[in-house]
Amino acid sequence: MDNGGVDGAAAAGRWRFGPNASLASVSASSIRAVLDKVIANIRDDGPRPVLPLGHGDPSAFPCFRTTAVAEDAIVAAVRSANFNCYAPNVGVPPARRAIAEYLSRDLPYKLSTDDIFLTAGCSQAIEIALSVLARPGANILLPRPGFPFYEARAGVNGLEVRHFDLLPEKGWEIDLEALEALADENTVAMVVINPGNPCGNVFTYQHLAEVANTAKRLGIMVIADEVYDHLVFGSNPFVPMGVFGSTVPVLTLGSISKRWVVPGWRLGWIVTSDPNGVFKETKIVDSLTIMLNITTDPATFIQGAIPQILENTKDDFFEQTINLLRKTADICYDKIKEIDCITCPRKPEGSMFVMAKLNLSHLEGIHDDIDFCSKLAKEESVIILPGVTVGMKNWLRVTFAMDPSSLEEGLGRLKSFCHRHTKNST
Amino acid sequence: MDNGGVDGAAAAGRWRFGPNASLASVSASSIRAVLDKVIANIRDDGPRPVLPLGHGDPSAFPCFRTTAVAEDAIVAAVRSANFNCYAPNVGVPPARRAIAEYLSRDLPYKLSTDDIFLTAGCSQAIEIALSVLARPGANILLPRPGFPFYEARAGVNGLEVRHFDLLPEKGWEIDLEALEALADENTVAMVVINPGNPCGNVFTYQHLAEVANTAKRLGIMVIADEVYDHLVFGSNPFVPMGVFGSTVPVLTLGSISKRWVVPGWRLGWIVTSDPNGVFKETKIVDSLTIMLNITTDPATFIQGAIPQILENTKDDFFEQTINLLRKTADICYDKIKEIDCITCPRKPEGSMFVMAKLNLSHLEGIHDDIDFCSKLAKEESVIILPGVTVGMKNWLRVTFAMDPSSLEEGLGRLKSFCHRHTKNST
Repeated sequence: MDNGGVDGAAAAGRWRFGPNASLASVSASSIRAVLDKVIANIRDDGPRPVLPLGHGDPSAFPCFRTTAVAEDAIVAAVRSANFNCYAPNVGVPPARRAIAEYLSRDLPYKLSTDDIFLTAGCSQAIEIALSVLARPGANILLPRPGFPFYEARAGVNGLEVRHFDLLPEKGWEIDLEALEALADENTVAMVVINPGNPCGNVFTYQHLAEVANTAKRLGIMVIADEVYDHLVFGSNPFVPMGVFGSTVPVLTLGSISKRWVVPGWRLGWIVTSDPNGVFKETKIVDSLTIMLNITTDPATFIQGAIPQILENTKDDFFEQTINLLRKTADICYDKIKEIDCITCPRKPEGSMFVMAKLNLSHLEGIHDDIDFCSKLAKEESVIILPGVTVGMKNWLRVTFAMDPSSLEEGLGRLKSFCHRHTKNST
Repeated sequence: MDNGGVDGAAAAGRWRFGPNASLASVSASSIRAVLDKVIANIRDDGPRPVLPLGHGDPSAFPCFRTTAVAEDAIVAAVRSANFNCYAPNVGVPPARRAIAEYLSRDLPYKLSTDDIFLTAGCSQAIEIALSVLARPGANILLPRPGFPFYEARAGVNGLEVRHFDLLPEKGWEIDLEALEALADENTVAMVVINPGNPCGNVFTYQHLAEVANTAKRLGIMVIADEVYDHLVFGSNPFVPMGVFGSTVPVLTLGSISKRWVVPGWRLGWIVTSDPNGVFKETKIVDSLTIMLNITTDPATFIQGAIPQILENTKDDFFEQTINLLRKTADICYDKIKEIDCITCPRKPEGSMFVMAKLNLSHLEGIHDDIDFCSKLAKEESVIILPGVTVGMKNWLRVTFAMDPSSLEEGLGRLKSFCHRHTKNST
């Protein structure tokens, strides 16, 4: 057999495989990549503990420990040995039913078990939703600032991304006029993250109604990322986008990660909040089911624990989390107000983050947000996420979901740092 | 603002989104789709219990219950509250270290922690491995019969599939000559599933050495699917493909799903069995890392339990599983031998399956394997997987991983069914 140039490929040191080049661009600006760069500046011999104000995961702080109800439910599911098996690809029926009931409480219609598709965390919900929408030439409208996992998955799936702005001067509402101008006949969806990551805003009912009407006019679906659902502590209540499901079909993404403070448990969902059955009619549900057939699932015993977790968690636990977040949001906003070179356009009312603008002209020897955060890490052992990773160069995304004293300490160090680097105006 | 044809898209009933057409072809021949078709024939009012000989998951049978060591490790990890957080995208270090040590026992070199990448089960390991290899024009060599999840993921990733045959007359060894003829300069990898799914064969050291040399000559990597590692009960010992890692770089895929009988726990791994560092040099490791950054992870507390599970499980537990599988493989082979219209070319020596050929010419009114399995389900409440789903039309994939009496009962019903449908030769 003669296989021409193939023989000796390896002998010559030439392997025929290579990296997936399309992944390289995905990586460079990821939160992880930029945070790693920032963290690399931390001095190992620093005298003070490192304070992380860049994360989205407060579970390591004892004051954010999940409820015993949730732990007990997992233990019972493991001990039962009923959930060692593979699960149906859409999830075990009791978990789907429990989630349908749980989410229906906030909707003007009832979700059915068939509306619920279990995923391995909200990140897999995003993976699957974007895979389902990918088709040659399609584009998707994403918020700026936003959550860069969407951009990464759109890239992998060959979906073109078009960004619409969230307006700081309007409490981070969506610039709907600009959004309409962005859309064309290949636009398939827009993403709404509410409560807001990274802005900490909570959309009003009225604004969401306008979003729904706009999407309807454009003929696009709304992907409603509600992973921070119910984590609100300002004047606006949390309104699920699914409330407008009869105006426009909504794919709701969520999980127990944030409300139960267990992001590592990897249990999320995709919900067809679509009482008119548009997703069924347009075969989106078929595509969803196929994608779920060829992707991994959340651990079966965690699915098995879901009914107990959703039904038995006491309001006390939720209230405690909300009170703590309200307190730390206040601390965060107040402390940042004391710092001249950083402006926070809006007090956070939800999620775990706030966006704050750097006034570089006030600072000496700081080039941009990455430079700011790198030097802050080096000099103060404080980690903050450069805004560029979420689409806002020379802004900062500050996490306030941590224990109050560590937060105060971290913001105090931020203030010292800024003070030290302020241009001498005399 | 004039947005031309966009206005009224929805009003006219025309939504701009639609299903991902490339997924439709993926679905039709999936194990799940075909099994659902077969199962639909089961009569709800059947007098006898349904016997599942089509699955790959014996965890529901009490005789295949996992060890208490594994359950205890999970419970301890949950109770510790140390693992509610997100994990590093490549996995928590103690779990990576434990897996490196565990797998190194069977290798002529030591794997390091950095060689281990945790995944949400072996299926996500396949997802990620194929995503990393996808680049325009690339093709991958897959076994026939095989595991159709590979074909599905190759389809999603735009990787061309070329099939090489496993030869029943040679104990299901790979037709390496034909494989070499299939490869060209765009071939990037071949997949080896050992112990074999669906054939129940176990490759010899000598055959795997030839595989390694062939792959080296072709300049392609070997993806070694060893999800059934150590589940062997014949004369051939299990030899990990990584033994030949210095001949050819091997990406080893595995999990705790089969050996610990906990497929629902969704904990697997990708391992660079590559002492020469080819994967690092060719930037495959970089691509792997990026893909892991933008995909979901196994639950953190399950990762946290891995060191205890791997270190504390007693040999007793493994021996008990092996003895049971040896016994049920014997039953399966012997019972099928008694059936005229079905031929089993090789006694299973590993995994949980055996392939058996239908002799349709002996049967009356049976068109093909799907027809056979559908009628079997209807008449006997026995579920067997049609071979067409794994690439072998008019064969059957029979699972013997179940309790011995149910297996005997199921095969007895299979025999009655065949007898009843045998052509009258008088």
